[in-house]
Amino acid sequence: MPHPWTPISGGLTAPAGFLAAGTTAGLKASGKPDLALLLAPEGAVCAGTFTTSLVRAACVDLCAQRLAASGGHARAVLTNSGQANACTGARGLADSLTVTAAVAERLNLAPEEVLICSTGVIGVPIPMHTLVAGLDPLVAALSPEGGAAAAQAILTTDLIDKQIALEANLGGRTVRIGGMAKGSGMIHPAMATMLGTLTCDAGVPADVWQAMVSRAVDRSFNAITVDGDTSTNDTFLAFAAGELLGPEHFDALEAGLTAVSQHLAKAIARDGEGATCLLEVQVEGAADEAGARAIARTVCGSSLVKCAVHGRDPNWGRIVAAAGRAGVLFDPNAVALWLGDHQLMAAGQPLAFDRAAASAYLRERAAGAYLQDDTVQIRLQMGAGPATGVAWGCDLSDQYVRINADYTT
Amino acid sequence: MPHPWTPISGGLTAPAGFLAAGTTAGLKASGKPDLALLLAPEGAVCAGTFTTSLVRAACVDLCAQRLAASGGHARAVLTNSGQANACTGARGLADSLTVTAAVAERLNLAPEEVLICSTGVIGVPIPMHTLVAGLDPLVAALSPEGGAAAAQAILTTDLIDKQIALEANLGGRTVRIGGMAKGSGMIHPAMATMLGTLTCDAGVPADVWQAMVSRAVDRSFNAITVDGDTSTNDTFLAFAAGELLGPEHFDALEAGLTAVSQHLAKAIARDGEGATCLLEVQVEGAADEAGARAIARTVCGSSLVKCAVHGRDPNWGRIVAAAGRAGVLFDPNAVALWLGDHQLMAAGQPLAFDRAAASAYLRERAAGAYLQDDTVQIRLQMGAGPATGVAWGCDLSDQYVRINADYTT
Repeated sequence: MPHPWTPISGGLTAPAGFLAAGTTAGLKASGKPDLALLLAPEGAVCAGTFTTSLVRAACVDLCAQRLAASGGHARAVLTNSGQANACTGARGLADSLTVTAAVAERLNLAPEEVLICSTGVIGVPIPMHTLVAGLDPLVAALSPEGGAAAAQAILTTDLIDKQIALEANLGGRTVRIGGMAKGSGMIHPAMATMLGTLTCDAGVPADVWQAMVSRAVDRSFNAITVDGDTSTNDTFLAFAAGELLGPEHFDALEAGLTAVSQHLAKAIARDGEGATCLLEVQVEGAADEAGARAIARTVCGSSLVKCAVHGRDPNWGRIVAAAGRAGVLFDPNAVALWLGDHQLMAAGQPLAFDRAAASAYLRERAAGAYLQDDTVQIRLQMGAGPATGVAWGCDLSDQYVRINADYTT
Repeated sequence: MPHPWTPISGGLTAPAGFLAAGTTAGLKASGKPDLALLLAPEGAVCAGTFTTSLVRAACVDLCAQRLAASGGHARAVLTNSGQANACTGARGLADSLTVTAAVAERLNLAPEEVLICSTGVIGVPIPMHTLVAGLDPLVAALSPEGGAAAAQAILTTDLIDKQIALEANLGGRTVRIGGMAKGSGMIHPAMATMLGTLTCDAGVPADVWQAMVSRAVDRSFNAITVDGDTSTNDTFLAFAAGELLGPEHFDALEAGLTAVSQHLAKAIARDGEGATCLLEVQVEGAADEAGARAIARTVCGSSLVKCAVHGRDPNWGRIVAAAGRAGVLFDPNAVALWLGDHQLMAAGQPLAFDRAAASAYLRERAAGAYLQDDTVQIRLQMGAGPATGVAWGCDLSDQYVRINADYTT
């Protein structure tokens, strides 16, 4: 889909009127930044999508309740990293209320206008004294250049920060969209990603904005998987504030929103724990889009496919086997399969292919994160249907196991 | 459930009248045994359950068709290991027909009475000349002591063969049930396991037998997971032949059938690729049995839970997070959780627990496969509901990744 958006710097604070900050309060043993704050302009609308897990953190409940009660309005979001504040019972909710009230007081807002996201170890409460003591320096650091610092402060096992901003001329005015995200493990979002925040300096009615955001999330964060584990804290919050945009530009705005969301989602998959490449699975010729996406995500999430990619082994049988268990009806005798430019199957039957060249294709895509050629592309044609779908993930390495065997000890 | 069954030796050929053999035809590069044959007595009924994957091997189609056409009767099953003969198109079906016809000729059976199972690399056809040349020595080796040789010949990445036999006195007569299975990776059976065969020397009407077998499979092979990948070749075949058993003994027979199936299923989970322990997840107090099993299997299949167990890390938050995404409704505030005898949660809230003792519990269960103390037990109480469910799996190790990164190259 061609769109008028071009990348600019500035991340979350590239859109006019948004302030952000990231500081170190001392919540993490590592001493890395751990507290981020975003302040949106007066009148901002806010759309949220949240984990579909039945077990969700108090902060997720609080965000969902406040957005529902306000009809999609909020002014600020605080993010703490180090403790997920999930499975912490009544204390978890009390702590979330205390933190948002303390932030509201310092920003002259009502407590209901402040949201909170938490990420880190499940079951561990937030050291409240440390967090609250960090709020004054955090608020003092708010600035129109604070996007980068905020993007750093929300990370946990991530190796790299994830942010982007886009700009377009819509009907003679400049519109900007910015975003940041974090996530590296426990990534199989269902309605949202681990944590993501987006800003936009065009005004959009709250209900239109929520619908746009939900569609963009379906095509981005809900299309990635690192390990099949949906988090208790998945939250994506998207703020829009500014002069109202004419409805004739909504399609263009949604294209930008989708582009920012997809960039962040792919950055999370790229930075998947232990990953050495980005895995992109494109499904074409399916009967409907939901089925196409389900097949793409099932292949992308298959441990055996991920191990084969890690070993740079063109073991294509595992790809077709994974498609077969996606719960989507298709004709196995119509399937065609490509690995990069190498066609491996046609009409459901294996083709003779140059195994050495296919292995070389995989090895070349191992160059490391954030390079142009780090993407291993699998393309599945299911038949002659009209629908396409895509999913992003990463390979499964020994390193993933080491990271997650030793996480809390 | 107390039952009258006691273990005996002999595996698949412990029941009276069954002959088996396992030989080396040269289908595997390793030179290990690769061809197994089971011959059931005249009049045998045969129940089958098969992979629910849309992409399934020609041999699976053939077994399902023949059992449907015969109303649940078959006399023999040939198993070849080394090539899965899945995704091999028209040639795959032709080869399966040729092999079963060649076996039938040598056994004086109709081709329709012979079934075939294949396991190995997907997309690779069977070297037909090698296989057919191996049939005469295989048939010559058929014997009432052949169960052990057959159990060896069906293995692929398995480290150990999997077989068992049970005996009971039912109404004054001795009844025996034997079984063998293989499987180590691509294990998330849906309707059956990778490959399993069971024998019983009591006669049972075909429809009763199929219903019993389906229930036993639900409580055994469909309750294990190694890596979430359902195979293209999953097949479980259960033969019964002998004097008809009185209906008053059907419950006892089903208990034995379930015991044999669970033993084999747990043996597969124990021998999961790279596994260092058996993981058993018990769910209690659920609203219904299907939901209890779904929660158990989701926790058992969580990469993060499996990594934590591998690291002997009592990171219980991941267990509750996995339960939350199982798609089953429960009250998170009613959940209680135990790791072995260590209670970690009550009423949805974390308890203070002795982390060193819980880690020691996990480390002690690492002693290796097939020891009594190799089972890590996770027990989840969801509420006050009447239903229970159990699932078995294994930890996720660096070794799993190495095995599957290098499988075909």
